[in-house]
Amino acid sequence: MSVALHKDSSADIGEYMAGLGRAARAAAAELAAAEPALKNAALLEIAAALDRNRDRILAANREDLEAASADGLGDAMVERLELNPVRIDAMIEGLQQVVKLADPVGEISELRYRPSGIQVGKMRVPLGVIGIVYESRPNVTVDAAALCLKSGNACILRGGREALNSNQAIYRCIQQGLEQSGLVATAVQVVNTSDREAVAQMLKLDDCIDVIIPRGGKSLIERIARESWIPVIKHLDGVCHVYIDEHADLGKALEIAVNSKTRRYGVCNAMETLLVAEPVAARILPDLVARLTALGVELRGCERTRQFAADRIVPASEQDWYSEYLAPVLSIRIVDGLEQAIEHINRYGSGHTDAIVSEHYGHARAFLRRVDSSSVMVNASTGFADGFEYGLGAEIGISTDKLHARGPVGLEGLTSQKYVVFGDGNIRA
Amino acid sequence: MSVALHKDSSADIGEYMAGLGRAARAAAAELAAAEPALKNAALLEIAAALDRNRDRILAANREDLEAASADGLGDAMVERLELNPVRIDAMIEGLQQVVKLADPVGEISELRYRPSGIQVGKMRVPLGVIGIVYESRPNVTVDAAALCLKSGNACILRGGREALNSNQAIYRCIQQGLEQSGLVATAVQVVNTSDREAVAQMLKLDDCIDVIIPRGGKSLIERIARESWIPVIKHLDGVCHVYIDEHADLGKALEIAVNSKTRRYGVCNAMETLLVAEPVAARILPDLVARLTALGVELRGCERTRQFAADRIVPASEQDWYSEYLAPVLSIRIVDGLEQAIEHINRYGSGHTDAIVSEHYGHARAFLRRVDSSSVMVNASTGFADGFEYGLGAEIGISTDKLHARGPVGLEGLTSQKYVVFGDGNIRA
Repeated sequence: MSVALHKDSSADIGEYMAGLGRAARAAAAELAAAEPALKNAALLEIAAALDRNRDRILAANREDLEAASADGLGDAMVERLELNPVRIDAMIEGLQQVVKLADPVGEISELRYRPSGIQVGKMRVPLGVIGIVYESRPNVTVDAAALCLKSGNACILRGGREALNSNQAIYRCIQQGLEQSGLVATAVQVVNTSDREAVAQMLKLDDCIDVIIPRGGKSLIERIARESWIPVIKHLDGVCHVYIDEHADLGKALEIAVNSKTRRYGVCNAMETLLVAEPVAARILPDLVARLTALGVELRGCERTRQFAADRIVPASEQDWYSEYLAPVLSIRIVDGLEQAIEHINRYGSGHTDAIVSEHYGHARAFLRRVDSSSVMVNASTGFADGFEYGLGAEIGISTDKLHARGPVGLEGLTSQKYVVFGDGNIRA
Repeated sequence: MSVALHKDSSADIGEYMAGLGRAARAAAAELAAAEPALKNAALLEIAAALDRNRDRILAANREDLEAASADGLGDAMVERLELNPVRIDAMIEGLQQVVKLADPVGEISELRYRPSGIQVGKMRVPLGVIGIVYESRPNVTVDAAALCLKSGNACILRGGREALNSNQAIYRCIQQGLEQSGLVATAVQVVNTSDREAVAQMLKLDDCIDVIIPRGGKSLIERIARESWIPVIKHLDGVCHVYIDEHADLGKALEIAVNSKTRRYGVCNAMETLLVAEPVAARILPDLVARLTALGVELRGCERTRQFAADRIVPASEQDWYSEYLAPVLSIRIVDGLEQAIEHINRYGSGHTDAIVSEHYGHARAFLRRVDSSSVMVNASTGFADGFEYGLGAEIGISTDKLHARGPVGLEGLTSQKYVVFGDGNIRA
């Protein structure tokens, strides 16, 4: 049913990966035509298999954790790698939530008659085969498989080397679930080798894989995008800004800035740079510096900013404006006003999420139009940039690309649209 | 205002192309914020400049034609290269038509309140900078520039080597138009070197160019897709099918098949393979063979097909099923029914446009759902697969890709959507 496991002899890796690709392509045709009920049954069977095999999953995870500790992996990486009963619960709940989402496949929109008499619309269809390359979190194996299945796509998953045993244990549960539901078992395949060559070979399978989604550090993603023959949906860094306009309601500004920075530090929608319009700097910065300092945030400011509290703000370097700290660190710059704020964001930002705090209609309108980011907000915390908050139900990542999917990528981002034409024997003149 | 012309010293080409890239990126910010009226004024000024400079354009084109004849270029290529007063009229009319299209930029859709109190929607925005690589037709220079401008994108155009003089003459008109309208003159740039290295360098400018659209032969497009660091919207071949179901209205089937094949031969939406359900083959094939033969179409058939008219149908080879003839040649296969037709199309087709002729509800429904092509039709000629017929107003090509744009690519295909969030001081819990 599934492709034979690979034995890590590097000469065979090309053939092994091509075999996964062919199996996925064949599965994709079945999946694209699968009824919603069948896909949902498979998701629930996978959840049941995870529940039945908790001990095996945790045992496999312990092997990975022991190897990680022997290899001297850092605490943050070990934390991401670790599975426990609560995390297995979360994987199961995640599957149940995906079952509840509306099936995007087959929806027809914009169906209109044309002067020629034909009726033209667009039908939402799966992309086909999705390749996902990710790092240490083993729960991604379940989350990604669930979103791909629900959206009617076959997938090939390549997890982190350090999570190989955990991922294979989870994969066996996925296979059980697929088999018990009667859905094609190669709908999901997890690459069973830690050889890096497997990724290089995967990126060349442009006849079998329709899109690659890398999840991980910026350097991994950039390397994949350049090497790949297959289109890539990129999720690069989140250098997010809040700009406090001179027409801001300063009460809202304070809460939005504090929330955008301190709600969670290690997330891509956290604010990394605060921009403050010069006319209101003296009125808001003292309070803001006090609040953020009390919360343990290190502040790095431009010269003008430091005039308000030189003892609590270290000088920011040019590099700071480009930095995604993912930590309790914030850079602050005083700008002359809207123009300089937009310029700063489009120059130093990463096109992820940026917010203006302002009660000025024209300023809000210009900011919305001219800031070139995947989410642009007025009077709201950058923390809202999230698939759940936007109503997508779940997300596989936040795309900073412009093509195809921009911002949080949910089920719809894993689909495409084809044109459908209805006629009654129409021919073209 | 514009980047200095390049002198073809190959060491400088990287720097020359990078300069075009930086200028385009800077222009893109201005263009994205440009009012519809300003963009339309620029389009009309370009039309006026083309009209004023007809003699210069034709003189430049004569240089290209003479060089082409000296180089022994084929008739078809010379035909595509040639400009004349009618073709200049067509370029001018094309600009006027693009002026009339609705401006896609800034449209906000799906704006909805979320339980948190924020209001989330999507705003249509330009992609940024578009690189277009094309072959001999110089009118593409105007058509592509017009669609990019209207959709708020800067563009870098790289035409065919054989059309260098024609394209530069047209480019000077575009520059005049841009300057007279007051729109940034580097909104459109035409590469002024025939060195192939220019394309290789262009494909690496992933910090300056957001998408590459190649227009030309399959091998050119495949090479660009593999080499490029930048996402590519591909328009590969059109191996289009008509399937005549056993439940077809045979009168409609006859007209649709003849129109799909013979309306025009050299277009990507022409039928290249006809599939006929076995139960109706004897009733429709004799008429169809007679009609098509009378129109001068060479027929290549499977064995079963040849039983109906072995003298008028040569045997089809396996290669025929993959072939885009772009010529008065048609391959015909008799299939058992719907299942085999869908299988054939998904296996041999190119995912461009495929039609079923049937009055059977379930068959039409299954065909629509399971044929994996950019346009899937019921009871209509494949000739309708076209941006104008679909109501897009104009098209820059027909994408056979699944990501981002599928099928005819009009103004909307040259845009993206960003999320916009409206709040009143909302913070995330």
